[in-house]
Amino acid sequence: MPHGPETWQSSELRQALFAPRSIAIVGQSNDAGKTAGRPLKYLRQAGYAGRIYPINPGRESVLGERSWPSLAALPETPEHAYIVAPTDAAVAAVAECGRLGTRVATLLADGFAEAGTDGAARVDRLRGICAQTGIRVVGPSSLGVVDLRSKALITANAAFDEEDLPVGRIVVASHSGGMIGALLSRGKARGIGFASLVSVGNEVDLSLGEICALTLEDPGIDGYMLFLETLRNAQTLRHFALAAAERGKPIIAYKLGRSTAARELAVTHTGALAGEDDVATAFLAGCGIARVDTLDGLLEGLPLLLRVPAAGGVPRMRVGVVTTTGGGATTAIDPMATRGVAIEPPGADTLRRLSAAGIEVKPARLVDLTLTGTRYDAMKAALDILTTAPEFDLVLCVVGSSARFYPELAVRPIIECVGAAKPIAAYLTPDAPEALMALSRAGVPSFHTPEACADAIAAALRRRAPARMQIDDAARARATAAAPSVPSRTTRLLSELEARALLARRGIVSAPSVVLDAHISTAPALPFPYPVAVKALAAELAHKTEAGGVMLNVADGDALIAACRHIREKVAATGPRVERVLVQPMIFGLGEVLIGYRADPDVGPLVMVAVGGIFTEIYRDRSLRLAPIDIAGAHEMIGELRGIATLAGLRGRPKGDLAALAQAMVALSTLADDPSILEIEVNPLIVLPEGSGVVAVDALARVV
Amino acid sequence: MPHGPETWQSSELRQALFAPRSIAIVGQSNDAGKTAGRPLKYLRQAGYAGRIYPINPGRESVLGERSWPSLAALPETPEHAYIVAPTDAAVAAVAECGRLGTRVATLLADGFAEAGTDGAARVDRLRGICAQTGIRVVGPSSLGVVDLRSKALITANAAFDEEDLPVGRIVVASHSGGMIGALLSRGKARGIGFASLVSVGNEVDLSLGEICALTLEDPGIDGYMLFLETLRNAQTLRHFALAAAERGKPIIAYKLGRSTAARELAVTHTGALAGEDDVATAFLAGCGIARVDTLDGLLEGLPLLLRVPAAGGVPRMRVGVVTTTGGGATTAIDPMATRGVAIEPPGADTLRRLSAAGIEVKPARLVDLTLTGTRYDAMKAALDILTTAPEFDLVLCVVGSSARFYPELAVRPIIECVGAAKPIAAYLTPDAPEALMALSRAGVPSFHTPEACADAIAAALRRRAPARMQIDDAARARATAAAPSVPSRTTRLLSELEARALLARRGIVSAPSVVLDAHISTAPALPFPYPVAVKALAAELAHKTEAGGVMLNVADGDALIAACRHIREKVAATGPRVERVLVQPMIFGLGEVLIGYRADPDVGPLVMVAVGGIFTEIYRDRSLRLAPIDIAGAHEMIGELRGIATLAGLRGRPKGDLAALAQAMVALSTLADDPSILEIEVNPLIVLPEGSGVVAVDALARVV
Repeated sequence: MPHGPETWQSSELRQALFAPRSIAIVGQSNDAGKTAGRPLKYLRQAGYAGRIYPINPGRESVLGERSWPSLAALPETPEHAYIVAPTDAAVAAVAECGRLGTRVATLLADGFAEAGTDGAARVDRLRGICAQTGIRVVGPSSLGVVDLRSKALITANAAFDEEDLPVGRIVVASHSGGMIGALLSRGKARGIGFASLVSVGNEVDLSLGEICALTLEDPGIDGYMLFLETLRNAQTLRHFALAAAERGKPIIAYKLGRSTAARELAVTHTGALAGEDDVATAFLAGCGIARVDTLDGLLEGLPLLLRVPAAGGVPRMRVGVVTTTGGGATTAIDPMATRGVAIEPPGADTLRRLSAAGIEVKPARLVDLTLTGTRYDAMKAALDILTTAPEFDLVLCVVGSSARFYPELAVRPIIECVGAAKPIAAYLTPDAPEALMALSRAGVPSFHTPEACADAIAAALRRRAPARMQIDDAARARATAAAPSVPSRTTRLLSELEARALLARRGIVSAPSVVLDAHISTAPALPFPYPVAVKALAAELAHKTEAGGVMLNVADGDALIAACRHIREKVAATGPRVERVLVQPMIFGLGEVLIGYRADPDVGPLVMVAVGGIFTEIYRDRSLRLAPIDIAGAHEMIGELRGIATLAGLRGRPKGDLAALAQAMVALSTLADDPSILEIEVNPLIVLPEGSGVVAVDALARVV
Repeated sequence: MPHGPETWQSSELRQALFAPRSIAIVGQSNDAGKTAGRPLKYLRQAGYAGRIYPINPGRESVLGERSWPSLAALPETPEHAYIVAPTDAAVAAVAECGRLGTRVATLLADGFAEAGTDGAARVDRLRGICAQTGIRVVGPSSLGVVDLRSKALITANAAFDEEDLPVGRIVVASHSGGMIGALLSRGKARGIGFASLVSVGNEVDLSLGEICALTLEDPGIDGYMLFLETLRNAQTLRHFALAAAERGKPIIAYKLGRSTAARELAVTHTGALAGEDDVATAFLAGCGIARVDTLDGLLEGLPLLLRVPAAGGVPRMRVGVVTTTGGGATTAIDPMATRGVAIEPPGADTLRRLSAAGIEVKPARLVDLTLTGTRYDAMKAALDILTTAPEFDLVLCVVGSSARFYPELAVRPIIECVGAAKPIAAYLTPDAPEALMALSRAGVPSFHTPEACADAIAAALRRRAPARMQIDDAARARATAAAPSVPSRTTRLLSELEARALLARRGIVSAPSVVLDAHISTAPALPFPYPVAVKALAAELAHKTEAGGVMLNVADGDALIAACRHIREKVAATGPRVERVLVQPMIFGLGEVLIGYRADPDVGPLVMVAVGGIFTEIYRDRSLRLAPIDIAGAHEMIGELRGIATLAGLRGRPKGDLAALAQAMVALSTLADDPSILEIEVNPLIVLPEGSGVVAVDALARVV
């Protein structure tokens, strides 16, 4: 990965991908109406200046040009081959390309990662060719690699069948081939242009992150727009994202999978696993990637990221709104506020300055110019005042009907404020395509719908600078070890005693306990008073409670003997033999939480906190972060739990020791330095009153 | 309200509003750049054929036309007056209009409902004029009344300053004047036209519901598009909605106020109270109005409502999706699924029929034509099959890049299927304005963004036929009685004993109880065993627990005496004297819920159910409906509570008596027949095991 200066290899690969001097089209059809007929047509139409070699063994010519019978027959080795032949012929063509020394092959065919056993064999074959010959592969299932600057339109996507393609400074990378076309045409309509657009397909060799990383040193690139269906190859994506953050090149991403139905489709469609959606959110946030929820937010949001720097600490999300239309502005305010953006009213000093400038506004969360009228001077003065007022982190300007035919009234002043001290954004309530284009061309973040506006503003303000990867090698090792292809028998469930020891080494206190023979017939002296909890102690017993392996509130010695017998019999009925039990005092704190760590097969080390009990499951009230975290991060995670109110003094309740909880989370998250730990869950962790700490009373751990 | 055949009065009023033969513009300016200069310009530009009388006492002519010094000087009484003069002059002009016999005055000025005491006095003055003279008023703060058919552009909204306004069959009514302009221009860009657009302003006389109701018998109107900032005048809106439902004319609404910030703005902006958002949701649903969350959903959603009939019983929300682009389709599937729409995979029979038609699809939730290719015949065959398959309630067609330049491939077949047995909808992934226009003109519900598509589909499928209002007069009486202008001293809090009696009369069982003198010094015999709960019995003691008026788990007679003393002393410290206590057995069921009824000042009788305990508050896990409800409605409400899982057998827990809970909710909701009941809350209602019922253990009621 190009963390440091660009290497010779990556420079050569970048050229072969995005600006090759020669392109072979393997399987080029003579019918421009067919998918396999498009690449030659589009390259010619765009005026690509390099050499093109259509290859079609069945014909002398295609689309009026000479065609070649094979790659071997060409007068030179093409730098880039777009292989639009069917699956098996495509694999053979990649092999031939590799043998001849072609640098990159982009594959259109499907029948690989998403296609079961046969597909997996083809993937292995492709990877073998890459390893042996040094060729790099984009795809399979790639609709192509397009660079609008070099006019290398190496694509079969029908969206490129037009003139005046919008050239710009953005790289688009997408798991979906269709979406590069959708973004292209929608961008054109909005005055948003692109440098390159890549359909990365199934990423059997070059991953989305690697492809994007190749362009990091390109001074013609300002930022990245990602359309993600999965988090396959998350580690290369993360490396790219960190390198992009270092270079001040923002990344905006739309990730499918908010719903189970969409995640299920991603599996059938891409052959990749689909993790839970909040894992994706935590991962992207940890990478400093702004995740949006709307397609227009993806398309329109990047200029905002170029103006709003990623937050170093806790993000500040105070937005001032100025408008010529109260109702219209509220349509943007409503979705911003539901996304956690604070709609900040103008302060006393700002109101004074507005008044001094002759702008009459009612005291409200909104600077509404309706009374003053839609006038250039009023909007200009209001923007000058708001963008220098300390109470706002961003100023949103919502312009009503005038934007359609009289942009000189309220749109021109926005364009003139593009370099203001605070970031500004604009939403226009009417259909006003020309004003939007003018705003976009001037670099003003601007939006056609209130929902995309709110989505992008929230995503931009929430974005953080990513933490450096402290444990690259360990993470990479674990990512491999934990990959789904590793059979589960190589992992091992720790006994509760071992899990407690693991916690103790990280400074997390467990309840005192003693281990007893499960066959006791006389009650031993215990180092703590009754009532006690009695639990089966056996590795490979993941669900102790469900198996009948836990007895709570055991009142005295006789009850303890009975509990041991009961547990032995119950567990043995469906699980392992129970030779020993763990006995611990019943601990009643102010409440229970669950904290967990896992080496996620997609995104790597994660730490989690959730409110304990049945409600965690029902309300999915949990917070996730990439591990490790610091103490501030732990407090933020705790603050994200709605249910934590019960431990934070709600309605006069006593406060729990949330500082100790945060410390325990930080401690747990340091397990990211140990590749042997796959997951550990402390459930429950009892939260004692403020100053009294937290106590783990049960833990489950899986290790390699 | 025109429930029956149109009356002569409403017909006359309709004409004066939407197609007047003469219009006076009071305060018309000579400067067309000013707001008060626009109405004359727009009327002339549109080619309005009636008589126009500009009134400007300071000038002989305005914008090159003769102007008149006063209303009295006109050669006839104008049917409609648009009053664009400042606030106080405007009130005088309305009085003059009333005196002369003008049918309708539309008021631009503000300074009324939203403007404190002075404003309230002006509102009273306007209402007095209406009552005395019979004139009807639109506004104040109305940007106008527009009818594109009669070319009566009685408006100062700059959005109407253009030619080729899109005429159609939809009425727009909006609390925001700016939004009628935004919808007009956005509709024009999308091929969506309008019959009338009304900025209803502050509704001091004619309400939004009344204005819309005037057009119910108009055969040129297909449906209604509402932009709502408040639920002021909810009862006339409901009457209109019920009448529209009877006539098969659907209503789609966007209601601001999902966030607290937006609700707060609505108050400053319109002077109306802002209820909680889920109250608005329950109200609109109860009226059979489809509520959307996106502005484009509002604009584009109505054709869907014209095809999807409102559900009679539980809505069926199974959508089949056919596409030429897997990734693009998933962008629509994701937000549909998160909104509760079931993405239904094709059944075995459908797969067979597809295969027989030569369409090769992988088994998935999606009929993906990628393998088959983007072809007219394939899409046509797929749609023919899907729209006749029993497993779908609606078919969504997502078309990729081809939609932009080759609509004959996959868009034409959709247009040809507009009359299919099942409703269809289309989302086009590229920017394809012409194809979208063609779809809209053909009446195919079609969408430019996946989010609006999902929003509108979910809203359409979720929509129900409204229940008839069983208690019109009572509701109206209560709506008046409970209006915020009635001082709170006219209402009374019932004692717990009275509240229990009220519940008992509706068949809701309370825990057994006895009333004791709070000063007892010897323990009485109780008709139930210890432990017991002891509660202060006093009217006007709303928060017994907080006041120290409740002791739980009282173990025996001595403890009972002590509890009485404790309660007397605690409550007296801050509240009323406690002379009596209520004693009841401790009842432990499987869990607690809260059920409530209230006569909401905006929307009228409402019934509510929530999961009990602290989590109701934290997770806002509650369900609301307009009261009364039937047993099916009660079960649906229960099903909407996520937390009810704890009482419904989650993880092997015993099941609670949810049938009894539903019966209790129905019983509570029948309080809608008693206008004296303002609110009652049963908290907690203990849910016993299946078959054992539910028991109210505490209740709070407020009556007039």
